[in-house]
Amino acid sequence: MASTVSRPRPQKLSAWNTWMDRALQLAELGDGHTSPNPLVGAVVLAADGSLVGEGYHARAGAPHAERGALDQAGERARGGTLVVSLEPCCHHGRTPPCSEAVIAAGLARVVVAMADPDPRVAGAGLAQLRAAGIDVVEGVRQAEALRLNAAFCHRVRTGMPLGILKWAMSLDGRTALPNGHSQWISGPEARQWVHRLRARCDAVIVGGGTVRADDPLLTSRGRRSPEPLRVVLSRQLDLPATAQLWELAVAPTLVVHGPGADPERRRRLLDRGVECLELERCEPAALLPVLAGRGCNRVLWECGPTLAAAAVAQGCVQRLAVVVAPLLLGGEPARTPLADLGLVDVNAAPRWRELSSGQLGGDRLWELALGPDNHP
Amino acid sequence: MASTVSRPRPQKLSAWNTWMDRALQLAELGDGHTSPNPLVGAVVLAADGSLVGEGYHARAGAPHAERGALDQAGERARGGTLVVSLEPCCHHGRTPPCSEAVIAAGLARVVVAMADPDPRVAGAGLAQLRAAGIDVVEGVRQAEALRLNAAFCHRVRTGMPLGILKWAMSLDGRTALPNGHSQWISGPEARQWVHRLRARCDAVIVGGGTVRADDPLLTSRGRRSPEPLRVVLSRQLDLPATAQLWELAVAPTLVVHGPGADPERRRRLLDRGVECLELERCEPAALLPVLAGRGCNRVLWECGPTLAAAAVAQGCVQRLAVVVAPLLLGGEPARTPLADLGLVDVNAAPRWRELSSGQLGGDRLWELALGPDNHP
Repeated sequence: MASTVSRPRPQKLSAWNTWMDRALQLAELGDGHTSPNPLVGAVVLAADGSLVGEGYHARAGAPHAERGALDQAGERARGGTLVVSLEPCCHHGRTPPCSEAVIAAGLARVVVAMADPDPRVAGAGLAQLRAAGIDVVEGVRQAEALRLNAAFCHRVRTGMPLGILKWAMSLDGRTALPNGHSQWISGPEARQWVHRLRARCDAVIVGGGTVRADDPLLTSRGRRSPEPLRVVLSRQLDLPATAQLWELAVAPTLVVHGPGADPERRRRLLDRGVECLELERCEPAALLPVLAGRGCNRVLWECGPTLAAAAVAQGCVQRLAVVVAPLLLGGEPARTPLADLGLVDVNAAPRWRELSSGQLGGDRLWELALGPDNHP
Repeated sequence: MASTVSRPRPQKLSAWNTWMDRALQLAELGDGHTSPNPLVGAVVLAADGSLVGEGYHARAGAPHAERGALDQAGERARGGTLVVSLEPCCHHGRTPPCSEAVIAAGLARVVVAMADPDPRVAGAGLAQLRAAGIDVVEGVRQAEALRLNAAFCHRVRTGMPLGILKWAMSLDGRTALPNGHSQWISGPEARQWVHRLRARCDAVIVGGGTVRADDPLLTSRGRRSPEPLRVVLSRQLDLPATAQLWELAVAPTLVVHGPGADPERRRRLLDRGVECLELERCEPAALLPVLAGRGCNRVLWECGPTLAAAAVAQGCVQRLAVVVAPLLLGGEPARTPLADLGLVDVNAAPRWRELSSGQLGGDRLWELALGPDNHP
């Protein structure tokens, strides 16, 4: 029956929404673990419409979502439908092409949310399926799928990971008192939320000033394995001899410096086993392609005002996560989230789009994105 | 029938909630116009429970809420119930005591939300009613009534009007760019909301710096008549010769200065008809009792960081209204909402309590209060 169904008209797409919602829910289980790959979830329905298989991409190197769902379904997939959040791949990566497995399974129909933006796929996977006589339905829950894989899509499109800039501040926009005291502006719930946020990121980036001032640990406290790569941008390597970031048993650390860095300091870090990388320009826009090359889809900027302003000004930030604690700190010389951006007219500042606003204990979390809604 | 009903037990109070909600809704119609009086609304139910009268206190000098509702009800009030948001007054003010009118109307029962904190009443009105054989039910929707009259209660309790501090800032806590440019950080909806906020306030307070920098108009744009009193705190009277605030046709202006102010500058203001007042200490805590004495229940601080910090530090601010525009301005020397509060430990900063968080066009409005929930 299913094999005789013609391609549905747009208004019929909604019939697939429920199953695609399930596929997206499955996909999200891999969040934080799949980079450089996208998040993908899949369900297989038998010819009679019953659910016979579910799968998701759990981590890079693990089977693709389609494969897991088809393995579960076995022979019951024949004449049935695969609902998958992303176009099946058609190239040989760490695993064989999914398009071939889909064809071999004898499916009648494949429903996808979006095409794979990876130029090695980019519609070729769907073309292969159609050439094999499979009915292909595209664009079901496309907006949700684009949102789910915003980081992956951004990295594929720009060659740089999606950047999230996070800070916690008082109601009057302060990140510390005039005397430098800042612990704790936000409450315990907000601090736990930061750990969860890190677990969704492939790298966490700070500057040397943050290492000197706060000696941070920068891990997800075990919520992600391996922990995200901890990255320090320090032009001169003016860094303390001992720091939690040099303890590599808990998480890896990469220190990026400029050509003028002191070789003796570099030697001391290398002796501790800390990876060091020299960049001609030790700045955000030069760092991000390096991190993309290492498979990072999403990175978190947890830095002080100077590096944060540079990251924003260089286009390295697409998301803001602002925690506002309900207190007033005051003080003209007090630390604020961002140093000078070089703006001279308020109207030249781009307006960010609100993604969410909610409570974290007594604090408020506000998440925003740059650009219009249809931009992942 | 009604006159034989004994005082209901607490769980029976809910039977009156709906009518008290109506009385509170009526009371709110006077918001911004009743100072120094409280907001009061009243409904009269006939002995058979049907609605026969409604009233509210529309402005100082106008009839009290009970009076209007009883006038509407006429003879139908006899044996019925008065539901009123505040204890009826028992003293001769600009209008005769309401307690006498209530007794004269032959009501069987009076339901009130809260006692009048005015020491001239403070339960004496209810005692008069009880002495006249009227069944009195207290505390129906008390929390809502306390909230509605938070400003009035604060003024009666402290001798100072309730202070709202309002500012608009960027996501990174800036009220201007490093070059001073600030128009417009917030959008048109937020600016209209400010006009509505002013209409609920009896005075709007700025410092000399705001007059020099922004030449503001500080009116409700006709939403309140008369417009709120515009107050300038300027120790030395270092003020421009021409300013919108000196145009008195649209709204009154009071300039408060210190003993050292230049007599010539004071003379120029007086010649224009601007009222001038010398205070030994030209500061927020000294100004507020003066404004309370002029009948202000609620004042709005729309000032720059130095005066705002002084108002907060001197306990003159009980509410915050923070408009956050979704943009980043950056810049270490940029203007921020508050100057130094003298804090040396984050944990010494009181946490404010969120009253509301919502959208104003593209901006976010966040309203907070100091102190626990049961404190009006």
